[in-house]
Amino acid sequence: MTQLWFTEKQTADLKLSLRVKETIYREKSPFQQIDVVDTYQFGRVLLLDGIVQTTTVDEFVYHEMISHVALNSHANPQSVAVVGGGDGGTVREVLKHESVQQVRLIEIDGAVVEASKRFLPEISCGLDDPRAKVRIEDGIKHMAQAKEEYDVVIVDSTDPVGAAVGLFSQEFYRSVHNALKSDGILVTLAESPWTEPEAIRRVQGALRGVFPIVKLYLCNVPTYPNGLWSFSIASKVYDPTRPIRQELPFATRYYTPAIHEAAFTLPPFVQEIIAGIGK
Amino acid sequence: MTQLWFTEKQTADLKLSLRVKETIYREKSPFQQIDVVDTYQFGRVLLLDGIVQTTTVDEFVYHEMISHVALNSHANPQSVAVVGGGDGGTVREVLKHESVQQVRLIEIDGAVVEASKRFLPEISCGLDDPRAKVRIEDGIKHMAQAKEEYDVVIVDSTDPVGAAVGLFSQEFYRSVHNALKSDGILVTLAESPWTEPEAIRRVQGALRGVFPIVKLYLCNVPTYPNGLWSFSIASKVYDPTRPIRQELPFATRYYTPAIHEAAFTLPPFVQEIIAGIGK
Repeated sequence: MTQLWFTEKQTADLKLSLRVKETIYREKSPFQQIDVVDTYQFGRVLLLDGIVQTTTVDEFVYHEMISHVALNSHANPQSVAVVGGGDGGTVREVLKHESVQQVRLIEIDGAVVEASKRFLPEISCGLDDPRAKVRIEDGIKHMAQAKEEYDVVIVDSTDPVGAAVGLFSQEFYRSVHNALKSDGILVTLAESPWTEPEAIRRVQGALRGVFPIVKLYLCNVPTYPNGLWSFSIASKVYDPTRPIRQELPFATRYYTPAIHEAAFTLPPFVQEIIAGIGK
Repeated sequence: MTQLWFTEKQTADLKLSLRVKETIYREKSPFQQIDVVDTYQFGRVLLLDGIVQTTTVDEFVYHEMISHVALNSHANPQSVAVVGGGDGGTVREVLKHESVQQVRLIEIDGAVVEASKRFLPEISCGLDDPRAKVRIEDGIKHMAQAKEEYDVVIVDSTDPVGAAVGLFSQEFYRSVHNALKSDGILVTLAESPWTEPEAIRRVQGALRGVFPIVKLYLCNVPTYPNGLWSFSIASKVYDPTRPIRQELPFATRYYTPAIHEAAFTLPPFVQEIIAGIGK
């Protein structure tokens, strides 16, 4: 049988290839190339400018870990913002917390939201919840105007290149600090320790100039470079390494309170990346 | 510049490609095709029958995690056997424990040892230590004849296909049980939870028929499928989830006693793979 393969050049020297059943959707939005392809091993895959954003098989890892660590470090998360995250997977996870009264999705590209609603229903389903409010808007502008509105802000963007660069700047983190309530928490994706140590260091450095508590945690996402992904989390009051609720009233496939704590246990080669920042 | 790429078909539907500087060594031994290639991202890579065994950039993860978890779960490991492991990386890590008086490497293919000594000196260096004894011998036959000789046995073989299948059988595990002293520990590689859950389940099931204490732990190896690798560890007496020594008198880049404990914290999707075995 004819074999079709999608290949992502994850770095100049590393490629990951997934065997493709068929292309589902292809569109050029004003912001980026959007593709949804169906693969044998990872199910449907959302690609933005040819980069894997999420897959129906492994998406639970990323979406659980970007959401529950922050929400389960906060005593009473009610108001949450997701910047980016147009596929809706993060919103779906945030809504599992009963304390949450509203989650605002601030996505710059409405075409990503529409494509996900049509072709990735198991990921985008949370966007139909009455507590979810979708705004097609620039997250940088939104945060610059928000004041003490949010308990948790989640930056679920593309990689820090092109349009997303501003979401990794200290100026943006200052805006988020102001947009958060007095006990608020910010979490942002922070690349792979193996291939992007400098990106991790930059984000940690920028956050430490703004927030009193800044930590790094890890998880395994098979379709991201090297299978090891990191998040940076910044907090005004709460210690994000300690889960507040030891049992959660909903099912998860990767996150647990025990995984929450384990995820902050860094191997020395990762500790070294963030050692000495701001000293 | 002309680009050369090595591609491993990790599964029927997943490929990993590394950009190659040059081939260093190519040989067909009586057992397998042996290649050493130099890559841009992962340094020198040892390939057996076209499958990545180890790379000079990420080898520390696998070799530290296959060695130190078992050795730091044992009160006084003196006599250690490594089955397979012809590259020498596991022996190098085992020898970091001062209590170890002898580590016997039982490798079926002497050509792997020779290639590693010549072309991967930073991995094979431990083989020159006077406490290291290399035997070119079938590990299955060796263990069938050994009686209460070892404190720790480490199975550091190729994947459970072809010649290595016997190293994943219950019969072999019974031999190792007999070859271990009364407080001995066995650790074996156990594939990726994402793509080989049945292999993990088989190994765990076979071990549970022989040893009273059997656990699974995880680590991130970028060049193995999905970046998530597992080990099964079986123990007669000691709880392998609890490191005995909280500080180690040698440097590591992945393993720490805290990582030791965290590695046994399994996400629910991995817990499910080994749930209900032997009930």
